[in-house]
This record gives sequence, C-alpha cells and structure tokens, in this order.
Amino acid sequence: MSRVLSEVLAAVRPVDQSLFPVAAVHLDNLTKPRGSLGRLEELAARLFVISGGVKPTVDPARIYVCAGDHGVAAEGVSLFPQEVTRQMVANFLAGGAGINVLAATAGIDLRVVDAGCLGEPFAPHPRFAGARVASGTANLAEAPAMTREQCEGALLLGVSLAEAAAAEGVRALGTGDMGIANTTPSTALFCAYLGLSPAEITGPGTGLDAGGVGRKAAIVAKGLALHADVVAGGDPVAVLACLGGLEIACLAGLVIGAAACRLPIAVDGFISTAAYVAARAICPTVADYAVISHASAEPGYAPIMAALDQKPLLDLGLRLGEGTGAALALFLMRSACNIYNDMATFASAGVSEG
Amino acid sequence: MSRVLSEVLAAVRPVDQSLFPVAAVHLDNLTKPRGSLGRLEELAARLFVISGGVKPTVDPARIYVCAGDHGVAAEGVSLFPQEVTRQMVANFLAGGAGINVLAATAGIDLRVVDAGCLGEPFAPHPRFAGARVASGTANLAEAPAMTREQCEGALLLGVSLAEAAAAEGVRALGTGDMGIANTTPSTALFCAYLGLSPAEITGPGTGLDAGGVGRKAAIVAKGLALHADVVAGGDPVAVLACLGGLEIACLAGLVIGAAACRLPIAVDGFISTAAYVAARAICPTVADYAVISHASAEPGYAPIMAALDQKPLLDLGLRLGEGTGAALALFLMRSACNIYNDMATFASAGVSEG
Repeated sequence: MSRVLSEVLAAVRPVDQSLFPVAAVHLDNLTKPRGSLGRLEELAARLFVISGGVKPTVDPARIYVCAGDHGVAAEGVSLFPQEVTRQMVANFLAGGAGINVLAATAGIDLRVVDAGCLGEPFAPHPRFAGARVASGTANLAEAPAMTREQCEGALLLGVSLAEAAAAEGVRALGTGDMGIANTTPSTALFCAYLGLSPAEITGPGTGLDAGGVGRKAAIVAKGLALHADVVAGGDPVAVLACLGGLEIACLAGLVIGAAACRLPIAVDGFISTAAYVAARAICPTVADYAVISHASAEPGYAPIMAALDQKPLLDLGLRLGEGTGAALALFLMRSACNIYNDMATFASAGVSEG
Repeated sequence: MSRVLSEVLAAVRPVDQSLFPVAAVHLDNLTKPRGSLGRLEELAARLFVISGGVKPTVDPARIYVCAGDHGVAAEGVSLFPQEVTRQMVANFLAGGAGINVLAATAGIDLRVVDAGCLGEPFAPHPRFAGARVASGTANLAEAPAMTREQCEGALLLGVSLAEAAAAEGVRALGTGDMGIANTTPSTALFCAYLGLSPAEITGPGTGLDAGGVGRKAAIVAKGLALHADVVAGGDPVAVLACLGGLEIACLAGLVIGAAACRLPIAVDGFISTAAYVAARAICPTVADYAVISHASAEPGYAPIMAALDQKPLLDLGLRLGEGTGAALALFLMRSACNIYNDMATFASAGVSEG
C-alpha cells in the first residue's frame, strides 16, 4: 500500500460511542413519544455523534457521480452499448439525468468525476471534479481489471474529492456511479469480500433476461476463479484491483476520505455498496460514517445486506444508480438533523410527558 | 346523508385510465433504463394522470393536521393524559412539533385544524384553519362516538378544507392527526370496514405494554359489539359516527374533498389510514387520488395494507402521526413530478437506447 494511502487510513478515527447516550437523552426530551420517529431518530443520533457532539447538519451536501468504463463489457453483460458511459457523463454535465433532477430537488450539489472513461478527455466544465486515472479497465475475466497503481490512484482520487469537499465547507457526501457493465465487477466484489456466490447474487442489471443473467454469473465466476489466489490472499486493495473498476475504486476512496474528514456519507445502490464493501474491507471504521441509502432492486441485494447486517433506509425499487438513492437519503438525513436541532422539548413547549 | 355531502360525492370523478399509457411512453423515453426509478416512476405516472394529462406538480403542497379529543380516553387506552391533545395543538401553532420541522424541511405549508378538541376554543392564529365541530366525542365503548350530524359536520369540514386549499392554488394535500387515544377508534374502524379482528390489529399506540394492549383490544371489541347492528348495516357514515372521531371524520372529508378537487393527497400513518379507509367506504373513487405514505409501526398495519392491497412508499418506523409520513411522501411526490418534467429524453440527450 502506498505511503499516502496508509496515512489517510491512519487518519480515520472511530466515532465517540459515549455520545450516543447524550443523543438519546436529547431525543427523548423532544415533544413526541419516545422513539416514535423511528429511523429518523436513529439517523439523528448517528449524525450528532459523527459531528462530535455539536448540532448536526448535512448542509451543504454534495454528491460525486463517478464514471468509468469496464473491459468486461466486451463479454456482453449489459444491454446498453459501452459508449453510453460517455453519453451519460455528457448528460450529467448538461443537467438532464435522473440524478440531476433528484439532486436539484433535494438541494444537493452535484459533481461529475471521470474516474476512468474511455476515449478523449472531456472538455472542462464547472461541474467536473478530479481527473481520470486510466482509460477504462481490462476485462476482469481475463486479467486483473486494474494494476495496483491504477487502483491506488483511483482510491486516492476519491480521497482527494472528499478532502476538497470538506475544505470547501461541505458537511455531507453522497456517492453515485455511472459505468456500463459495472454491476458485473460489483457482483464479483461482493462475492470476494463477503463470501457470496455468483449464482446467488448475480442479477439483471439494467434489464438482462434469465439467459443473460446466467451468462453474466458465469463471467463473474470466471473472474473469481482467475483471481482466486488474490481473493484468498486477503489484501483488500489487491482484490479491488483485480475485480473492481476505476469508478468503484474512486467511490471506495470517497467513502474512506469521508470518514477521514469525519463527514457522513450516503451510500447509493448496488455499485456504491460494492465500493462501500471494498472501503470497509480496507478500513472497517468507515462503517461509522456511512449511511446505506436504498435497497437495490437487484435480487442479490438482500443477502448482501444480511451479510453486512444493514437495512437500507429506503426501498422504492430504484435500480438506476447515479446517486439517486443517495440524494433521497441525504434529504432524510437533513430531516433528521432538523428534528434533532429544531423540535421543542416537553419542558419548553409545556407538554405533559407520557 | 345530507344533501351537501351527496353533492360532494357526486363531484368525485375517477381518473382517466387512458392516460397511463401516455405516461408510460414518456417515462420510457427518459435517459434511464426502463422502470429503473421504480416507485418514483409509478408515482410520476399517477400524478400525471391525476393532473389530467398536463405536467404534474405538487407545489404548493399543504398538510392539514387535524386534532380532536376522544371519550374513549377515559378507558386508559393511552399513556399520555388527554390534555396533551390541546398542548400539542399549541405546539403545532408555535412551530415546535415533529410535523412543523418535517413540513418546513420539505417546503410544505402546514395548517392546524381544531376539529373537536375539549376545552375553550383556541385563540385565533394564522396557522389555524376551519372551526371545531364539537368538543370531543363520547366513549365509543358506551355510546356512539358522534351523532350523525356531528360526523357529517366533521366530514364537511374536511371537504371545505380541501376546497379552500384548491381555491388558494394548492396542488397537493397531506393528512395529519393529533388526538390522545385515537389509535383506539382507528383500530375499531379498521375492524368494522375491513373485517379484521381487534386481537389481530390492536397495537401499543404511543407505548402501551402487553397488558395495556390487551385491555385496549377489549375496549375495541366492546365498541364493535355495542355497535354491531350499525356495522352490519353497511352505512359507512353511520359506522364512522359510532366508532370514529371528529378529527378522523374531518380527515376522511379531506380525502374526499381532495378527490373532488382532483388533488393528490398523501395519507399519513395509522390514524390517517383509518380516515382513508372510511373515505373509501363512503366513496371508493378516492383511491385514485390517495398515496399511502408510510407504513405505521403499529403491528396491525401489515394486515391492513394486505386488506387494501397497498404498499406504503416508506417504512422508517415512524409512529408519531401528525402528518410526518405525509411530509416525507410529498417530498417523494415532488421528486417524481420533477423526474417526469425535467429529465432529458434519449433523443434530446443523444444517449443510445438499450
């Protein structure tokens, strides 16, 4: 591991668990039956603790949607042609994608990151952040997707995005992804890090039929077999290099960077959760700062959540990625902060306690 | 049924089902895999159809939180003393309650309705709407909770609130409730309208222990037995009068009025859903306009949803009422409208289709 990455990891500190009872006392004094705001109270407590015991806030919030291309697309694992990655980056910049609309609705800043697209570099744009690490990955079913250097470069790109946001006063982050074929490396990463099987968790992505899902599961299995020694070796960065993607490694770095900067981070759907699982394998403490936003409609998501002992906040059947689930979750996180900060107490409102 | 109520019901028209395929074509042209925004797409289509086929919007949106007291509180079915209803109305007016915070976060106007509180009338306040129908209900375990005239008066109060909102340009409504002990009449209404049993669906409300839940179920059963002839008689307004509450009837009227005004309405948790079930029994077409916001944490909610063949949008463990679930749902409804109206199409963005 590079010295720089080691230094970042050393900067990640667990939250102060002793603040949870402080949050509980405050929440129980607010004018509502105890616990009656359910997961909003749980979120409020976590955000208070992440903030270090001051009034929690998520604003301003920012989502980084990170894009990359995948050599494994050559295996026909996606319904969409590979050039759609670039076309969608252009759509993000022009403001026409689903995440543009949902981020704007929720009052969240959106930045676009070319972590590893194919083709010419994009023209400069005020919504662009970061710089491409490499032009696409190799086919994980035939070779390591990334070199170790590329993978660490993408991780550090993500870290630098979190650090830049923190330096600009951003108080919460969200993850988003774009990359044709990227459910395939994500599925491989879940299998490698969580011990799940390709047959169990491979799903249709953007809309494969049953035959397509079977072929995709076989590609995932082939990649896992090819890189079995690395997976068994237990070095999480090496696993990410073999089976991941440039935007996935960048998102894993964003999660690590958020934790290093003590910022809460909303983790979007299937691909972002794979990045989170990679980040957690590299640095388990990131779990203190991450909020799992939305249940993916991918059929493998339930065993993945069971393996992580997590329940996503939302389950609206989203399977778009881009940060769409994270945008909705950041709105809930803002709601939770406002509950914590703005509700009256029984005493201040003159309301009798139960 | 009063002539006025009959006229309102006659004004409720079903939505134009032929608009759903129009919505589907539009949504499928947007730059995302088909159906990949899940329930947001379903909501967007419904809101387009409710709008009559023009650009859907929910803004400005307004929640009416309707308060009332309940004679059945004398049976000790709530942990909180009855005066908390009035104290919480004051808290709503002062801006310190959970719904104040969540409505403000979501940019939703909040109005407070004294549909049937005990005690002196409240002093005038800009956030107040409507006028009290009666001062509390009778104990449903010993007598009809309301007279027929009171019940129709509360229904018409709700209708008038929807009409006033529509006249002021409001484009979507949300329901909210406040009334100590009001899970008891709500449970009785679910049993009466949906054929469920008190033992199956009676829950802890604001926090009863197992013994308290058993006593509450017995009170519900007593009320159902006392009014068995009315329940068997099949007149839904008479059922609401015997077993309901003034704020519940007002909320049922709000649902009916929203449908009459062709406004979508977000139905909050347990109590609001009871009001919705009453409204649906009176006028089944209201279902076209209603969005079930949030799964109540009450254990009876799952069989209730099964009986209605509905799945709420959200499941965050909320059990506060007040419109808190409706506020979050209205934010999702706004998000869905913006998706419908603001996303680029494959053609306009130059993105290849899958």
